[in-house]
Amino acid sequence: MNPQIVKEQETMNATTINAPAGTPFVEVTREFDATPAQLFRITTDPDLIAQWLGPRGIDMTVEKYDVRSGGSYRYLHHDENGEYAFRGVFHTVEQDKYVVQTFEWEGAPGEVCLEKATYEPTETGVRLHQRSVFQSVESRDAFVESGMETGINDSMDRLAELIAKEG
Amino acid sequence: MNPQIVKEQETMNATTINAPAGTPFVEVTREFDATPAQLFRITTDPDLIAQWLGPRGIDMTVEKYDVRSGGSYRYLHHDENGEYAFRGVFHTVEQDKYVVQTFEWEGAPGEVCLEKATYEPTETGVRLHQRSVFQSVESRDAFVESGMETGINDSMDRLAELIAKEG
Repeated sequence: MNPQIVKEQETMNATTINAPAGTPFVEVTREFDATPAQLFRITTDPDLIAQWLGPRGIDMTVEKYDVRSGGSYRYLHHDENGEYAFRGVFHTVEQDKYVVQTFEWEGAPGEVCLEKATYEPTETGVRLHQRSVFQSVESRDAFVESGMETGINDSMDRLAELIAKEG
Repeated sequence: MNPQIVKEQETMNATTINAPAGTPFVEVTREFDATPAQLFRITTDPDLIAQWLGPRGIDMTVEKYDVRSGGSYRYLHHDENGEYAFRGVFHTVEQDKYVVQTFEWEGAPGEVCLEKATYEPTETGVRLHQRSVFQSVESRDAFVESGMETGINDSMDRLAELIAKEG
């Protein structure tokens, strides 16, 4: 067996998603072969976001992605069924360390979630830890049932691919 | 007994605070003798906020209070022990209906909560409903133990007084 392929497969499957029943939380963890500074740069670059954020095979239009404390963002996903708009504001952007932002799918206006992404250095790279909290257990459950798992897994895998390409 | 005083006392005690154990939520409800439009105007006016937001006897400096979707705010409370700074961003401001915003005490950076304030018309006035969700049960508990109850009750009572004065 080719050790390179084994390593790739392990990396491709290393996203963990944790959404404990009866809570409004979703936690996503993934390790990458990059420094916190590299991962931060790639995940906050408006010109790169369409290459990794969202499920594979979706087209993305980034209308605004102003990553700074007090900045805001809006983007659209397009597929054969139509258009999905998402928007939010950045509460804190602490370079190479963490980002706190809001997130809303405009199809369910007023159902907002708060996300904190932390860039933790590890012995071999960086651990991205995203913690989302919804305004109710019901809206968290609706998000989980919407098929978020594919979107999250694809995003994390695409991000790993982009890091390998962009460095 | 003077019926006017009884009515005032009832109004003064009508704030309910609900923080269920083991959850990251805090819910505050209060009815006011005002229309949703009046209450919205008073609660979003940067020139009035120092007159009602926070515990009685505290001095407040409003550095920024830009109430619009994508706007941000920062204010400071001063008492004999020092200065406390708070800041956040407005995710959605839907006039006379609801406001979704973030909230952080700068003394605990990175511990952010998401608040939704809804202005619901009732038969006799307006019900203000504020739902806050913290990033963890632990940070919600720390907020509850910080003595938030006095601050919330005082704020709601001061708001009722300001409505009676400003109309």
